[in-house]
Amino acid sequence: MTRVLTWPQIESVLEGVDLVAAMEEAFVAYSEGRAVVPPVGELILEEPRGEVHIKYGYIKGQPGYVVKIASGFPGNVARGLPPGQGVMLLFDREDGALTAVLLDEGHLTDLRTAAAGAVAAKHLAPPDVQRIGVLGTGVQARMQLDHLRGVTPCRSVLAWGRDAGRLDALITDLGALGFEAEAAGEPAQIGAACSLIVTATASHSPLLDEVRPGTHVTAMGSDTHEKQELSARLVGSADLVVVDSRDQAALRGEAARAVAEGSFDLDDALELGDVIAGRGGRTHADQVTIADLTGVAVQDLAIARAAAGI
Amino acid sequence: MTRVLTWPQIESVLEGVDLVAAMEEAFVAYSEGRAVVPPVGELILEEPRGEVHIKYGYIKGQPGYVVKIASGFPGNVARGLPPGQGVMLLFDREDGALTAVLLDEGHLTDLRTAAAGAVAAKHLAPPDVQRIGVLGTGVQARMQLDHLRGVTPCRSVLAWGRDAGRLDALITDLGALGFEAEAAGEPAQIGAACSLIVTATASHSPLLDEVRPGTHVTAMGSDTHEKQELSARLVGSADLVVVDSRDQAALRGEAARAVAEGSFDLDDALELGDVIAGRGGRTHADQVTIADLTGVAVQDLAIARAAAGI
Repeated sequence: MTRVLTWPQIESVLEGVDLVAAMEEAFVAYSEGRAVVPPVGELILEEPRGEVHIKYGYIKGQPGYVVKIASGFPGNVARGLPPGQGVMLLFDREDGALTAVLLDEGHLTDLRTAAAGAVAAKHLAPPDVQRIGVLGTGVQARMQLDHLRGVTPCRSVLAWGRDAGRLDALITDLGALGFEAEAAGEPAQIGAACSLIVTATASHSPLLDEVRPGTHVTAMGSDTHEKQELSARLVGSADLVVVDSRDQAALRGEAARAVAEGSFDLDDALELGDVIAGRGGRTHADQVTIADLTGVAVQDLAIARAAAGI
Repeated sequence: MTRVLTWPQIESVLEGVDLVAAMEEAFVAYSEGRAVVPPVGELILEEPRGEVHIKYGYIKGQPGYVVKIASGFPGNVARGLPPGQGVMLLFDREDGALTAVLLDEGHLTDLRTAAAGAVAAKHLAPPDVQRIGVLGTGVQARMQLDHLRGVTPCRSVLAWGRDAGRLDALITDLGALGFEAEAAGEPAQIGAACSLIVTATASHSPLLDEVRPGTHVTAMGSDTHEKQELSARLVGSADLVVVDSRDQAALRGEAARAVAEGSFDLDDALELGDVIAGRGGRTHADQVTIADLTGVAVQDLAIARAAAGI
């Protein structure tokens, strides 16, 4: 019997779940080759423009397989609708029966993305973060900070965004989360002042070119070959670059751009699952580390299982 | 607001729907290049073995896009479960919202496949069919005949299957559909006696090598490169070979096998959508025509729209 869960139902199931731990388990399984994750399916629509991604896969030995459909329709914003839409399906791995339909409206993707940012910060941030920086003023800017509260005691934030009104709204929302947040006039101020930085924009050109020694940057905005938040120089000069998936990093995200521009070699990157499992990571407080997250289907599998309570 | 429909609800919506007309429209749109149908996504599972296919796409100018997940778990049969499982999702093409979840348990795929067989017979069968032949004793053998009732007045059937018990059961079921059905001892008897033949088996070697002049054959059992129901000689000697998708026919189905064996050139095939639109077809009662159907995502789109009532 298929269970159909609406977003309020899913939210209440997830209240008691440690999503950081769920993501850690998923990343480790992925990096240890226990995940089967075929290439992402893609459907492009025109007039109005929309982009649909279909991610699917399973972890060997686990009871379910998952299919996630997530879309972005940029024109929705002008119509007062959220740009992201989506649904997750969880199937029984033994007989193919549809176990659960998670009508999450895209929220689970936001959640698992934010939880992955917290995982990256937990394992890569320098020991004593005095100020957190965030680039971008969208849903992820809020959610990343929300989830960072569980992995760092720092409550001081410097935020930047292109749109002054949206930036103001973000500052207010971060205040409600318990942060002392201030607006930066330009991205470089954040590079100069913060030691834990999250980039959560849809930028197509580099916003950040320089950070202080002892900084960790989680770049989660770029998930296509075209998007870029960090300069290739910054990626190439970092002491450690960590990617969620080496296969995906070859095609999209910050590492892919830096490779294309000749300033980085993907062989020098570690996978996040390997860092979590203790096979590498930050070795000195003064190192610059970058986590380049493009989103992997195992994250969807982990959060779908958590949401369905299995 | 997402609507969730169970199979009994879908069945009742479809009662008033002309599926043959819906399939005709879909095939024409496909052959006229108005459909966007990315490559099929595939997930293979082991222990127990399962195969999951993800088909998705849309027709330009229509309001929805569809994602279909359909799976086959051969081990289900021994456990008393249907091997096929599935779900169809219909999304709003304007904003990406999930319009409907069709919990069809795979039945919609069976239906659209059977309706496509009726479309092929409607446009390609000779004018005066005295006897229909069917190879295979599974779900499609019944459903193809069920749907043929709408496109031919003939009610005489000769049926063949490997398993005598299953063949008996089919004869009984066809009787309930209003057919006078008899069992054939071997496939060649059907080729010798029938002028409208449907092959609906999972055979991996040719069952039919010769038919009478003025016969139409719809081969719908073969949907992989390995499966084959018609000899390459029969395909090569037909007056007209029609495929649902030339792209797919290059990779799988009867035409692909005949091309591989050197007895057929795919440039000589017409697409079913072109035949429906009047750009070719049977020109003489004595011709032998073959429709080689492998199943196209636009069929799923058409039946999902019909089932959701939009």
